[in-house]
Amino acid sequence: MQQVRTLKELAEFVGGKVSGDGSVKISNAATLSQAVKGDITFLANKKYENQLLTTSASAVVVDREVESCTNLIISDDPYFAFREIVVLLHGHRKHKKTGISPKASVAETASIGKGCDIHDFATVYDGAKIGNNCVLYPGAFVGENTTIGDNCILYPNAVVFDNCVIGNRVIIQANASVGEDGFGFATHKGQHHKIPQIGRVILEDDVEIGASSGIERGTLDDTIIGKGTKVGDMVAIGHGTKIGAGCLIVPLVGIAGSVTVGNYCIFGGQSGIVGHIKIGNMVRIGAKAGVINDVADGKEMLGVPAIDSNKARRAYALIETLPEMYKRIKDLEKKLKKATDKTS
Amino acid sequence: MQQVRTLKELAEFVGGKVSGDGSVKISNAATLSQAVKGDITFLANKKYENQLLTTSASAVVVDREVESCTNLIISDDPYFAFREIVVLLHGHRKHKKTGISPKASVAETASIGKGCDIHDFATVYDGAKIGNNCVLYPGAFVGENTTIGDNCILYPNAVVFDNCVIGNRVIIQANASVGEDGFGFATHKGQHHKIPQIGRVILEDDVEIGASSGIERGTLDDTIIGKGTKVGDMVAIGHGTKIGAGCLIVPLVGIAGSVTVGNYCIFGGQSGIVGHIKIGNMVRIGAKAGVINDVADGKEMLGVPAIDSNKARRAYALIETLPEMYKRIKDLEKKLKKATDKTS
Amino acid sequence: MQQVRTLKELAEFVGGKVSGDGSVKISNAATLSQAVKGDITFLANKKYENQLLTTSASAVVVDREVESCTNLIISDDPYFAFREIVVLLHGHRKHKKTGISPKASVAETASIGKGCDIHDFATVYDGAKIGNNCVLYPGAFVGENTTIGDNCILYPNAVVFDNCVIGNRVIIQANASVGEDGFGFATHKGQHHKIPQIGRVILEDDVEIGASSGIERGTLDDTIIGKGTKVGDMVAIGHGTKIGAGCLIVPLVGIAGSVTVGNYCIFGGQSGIVGHIKIGNMVRIGAKAGVINDVADGKEMLGVPAIDSNKARRAYALIETLPEMYKRIKDLEKKLKKATDKTS
Repeated sequence: MQQVRTLKELAEFVGGKVSGDGSVKISNAATLSQAVKGDITFLANKKYENQLLTTSASAVVVDREVESCTNLIISDDPYFAFREIVVLLHGHRKHKKTGISPKASVAETASIGKGCDIHDFATVYDGAKIGNNCVLYPGAFVGENTTIGDNCILYPNAVVFDNCVIGNRVIIQANASVGEDGFGFATHKGQHHKIPQIGRVILEDDVEIGASSGIERGTLDDTIIGKGTKVGDMVAIGHGTKIGAGCLIVPLVGIAGSVTVGNYCIFGGQSGIVGHIKIGNMVRIGAKAGVINDVADGKEMLGVPAIDSNKARRAYALIETLPEMYKRIKDLEKKLKKATDKTS
Repeated sequence: MQQVRTLKELAEFVGGKVSGDGSVKISNAATLSQAVKGDITFLANKKYENQLLTTSASAVVVDREVESCTNLIISDDPYFAFREIVVLLHGHRKHKKTGISPKASVAETASIGKGCDIHDFATVYDGAKIGNNCVLYPGAFVGENTTIGDNCILYPNAVVFDNCVIGNRVIIQANASVGEDGFGFATHKGQHHKIPQIGRVILEDDVEIGASSGIERGTLDDTIIGKGTKVGDMVAIGHGTKIGAGCLIVPLVGIAGSVTVGNYCIFGGQSGIVGHIKIGNMVRIGAKAGVINDVADGKEMLGVPAIDSNKARRAYALIETLPEMYKRIKDLEKKLKKATDKTS
Repeated sequence: MQQVRTLKELAEFVGGKVSGDGSVKISNAATLSQAVKGDITFLANKKYENQLLTTSASAVVVDREVESCTNLIISDDPYFAFREIVVLLHGHRKHKKTGISPKASVAETASIGKGCDIHDFATVYDGAKIGNNCVLYPGAFVGENTTIGDNCILYPNAVVFDNCVIGNRVIIQANASVGEDGFGFATHKGQHHKIPQIGRVILEDDVEIGASSGIERGTLDDTIIGKGTKVGDMVAIGHGTKIGAGCLIVPLVGIAGSVTVGNYCIFGGQSGIVGHIKIGNMVRIGAKAGVINDVADGKEMLGVPAIDSNKARRAYALIETLPEMYKRIKDLEKKLKKATDKTS
């Protein structure tokens, strides 16, 4: 299944330059520490740079001529060039070809595009429309009147509820839920009454939703995740929240309801955003941060409650000095008292 | 499917008072910012009140006569009144009628009440009892000897393990697990040995469990979630924990094992509670708080470790001043030294 | 189904000593507070010790002769002894015997060992190898070419992706995902491009993965969870991370990618570990801690960012004094100014 290419061929493929022997044969991509003969690798993190002097890899993709014991491909965007090489050598996952399995459950009024694989035990309910070349793994569920575009993948037990709209090339990982009811209750005389959640979830093109994540449908208006935004595992997105394009939201993040997030924002692990606020474009939220106010474009936020990350790094690093600070204040008080007693 | 009513009819239905034109026709519920002609809306948050002057909505539900460019329903409990109107106009989700599907897996010794829909690929194991009018979506699983009351909904891939007891009108969202083994191991000579988890999970009437949440069964005694408590997505409840009635537990909360929680408590997002403690009634735990001690009735807690929330708000807001405080202490020390050197 | 034994028989079974009446009959294990006649219990937490004077239990397992109103088994390792008794009296969960159900989906080229129960709606794909005596509950999924050892249990809707390697006696809880794509994207001209995730997940013998957890497969090298490590519910493990043997990782923990964790580490609830760092052996990470640097063997870490836990306990306890500290600094400044004004 794996392809073999010369280093020269790979360099041409990614528009890079060979430094060293372009004729070496490459058949596999590996990490810098594990790469052996026949492997190509890249420098993931500056702190591993000295490994370039001892690596057994046949080639490394880098961003400039560097000291190394092996051959290099020099590329302006080495990580993306490496990614292109991994795709060439290994390809993406090949999905089992099942066609529309007779052991799937497809409603008569559902419409399924060309080239789809609807696996055993997958379900597509009434009025749902699936585009071309989609894959629904076992246990995947598509509810009534939901629309799914072309080239989408629903991994095992991924659930998309009714009346949602999923774009093209969307990937929904195993056990994720899209369009479950939002956490919306009206409390009256001590009882919490469910408000029908009549909004939808809209996932635009190229969105990916991680394993066991939950994207609540809106109470009244839609929950929207913008084009190309990637959501990690166990992420909770609240009802009616609108997330822009190209965001990266890593595992265990929680974004409450009615939040607006701009484009190209990054959310660190276990960060949380309260409801009804506005996050600008290109915002970076640090791991574990707790954001409780609007955030302007381009800001980087950290801490609980979140503040500017530069301020936060200095401030939070001082928490461990609190016992010392406390003592120094007490000492100062004593000394000052002594001094003033003396002078009075 | 949607109903049309006059504003007067809606006001009568919810016991409210019309201010303006009672004859306008209402067919849809919408958010304040998105509402158009024919829509009714409500004021979710005071900060949006100025939108009442410009909204295109045909009516707004409010709690008192307010300045507005449109018609009003005035109600003592506007949020609940609005909810009643949403139910009237839109209704709750209609579930596909399948009866007991021949493609479901129902054990011979299981008992299924009247009017149930057991969808394709749902499983009910031996000795399980399902009440009347329940819906089990595809992939839902009910283990041996578990009892489920009337009018319950198990959404796709919801799992209820063996020997659990589920009340009436309970909703278990997609991919949630109820009754999996607790995290209970006895470590002996460096090995962690599983303790059979012989307790059950009891979900009382009107409980809702969110998508991808996990409610561990008890090691010896039962894990209990009280009447009307609503649990959000990706919430972890530990073995043997007892939660009272009417609590609201939002996404990504973790409550460890053997905790006792009173009635009508609210847990903010990503908050956590250590094991073996007691939380009183009407307690509010702030988002991201970490509670490590018992909490008395009516308290509001915030921070890690959690303290009284008023104290916490003042204290945590000062974290960002730590570099300045540190510097001021140093300055004081210098100045005091200089002053005392001079006077000595 | 429950067994009945005399206390003497139980003491002999666990190598303990009876204090009191060895002839009492024991048929059930229970918690100290709920135990009644016929029950055996144990002391889970010192703070409950006074309950030994009033318990209705027929026996308690303890680690030394203590004052009590009932019979005792004295054991060097009372928790493990109690666990052995629970196993004897109650046994582990009995799984429904289904053989390879004709309603399961097993690929022709998959191999299934002896004594397996592959339930309705479980799926085993091409080239997968399942060992002996495994149980795959409904909705469980095993991808292409994945290998599973002997005596494993995949609970309902547990998903193991393609090309993974699962050891013996591994338990994967309901709705968990093992081997989903890591969060690996190369961003190029504002687009996030998926990097084929060609690494695998390896779960060594006796690993348990909690409900709704997600174990990402490696981008290039494997994600590995070592022998006997137990992972709780909704835990996220990043791509390429290697976790040693005998660790305990409780619910809602997030460990990012390319992390190395030693043996016998304990991760408290909602703790998080950034990528590309190294955690030693026997490390304890406190609940909610955020670890951003390497941690040496045997350390206990707490706080965000995490520091030595003794330091952290003292320091974080002082956060609530910040308003007071702030005021005292201001007072000092005033008094010092007054004093120096006077003396100058």
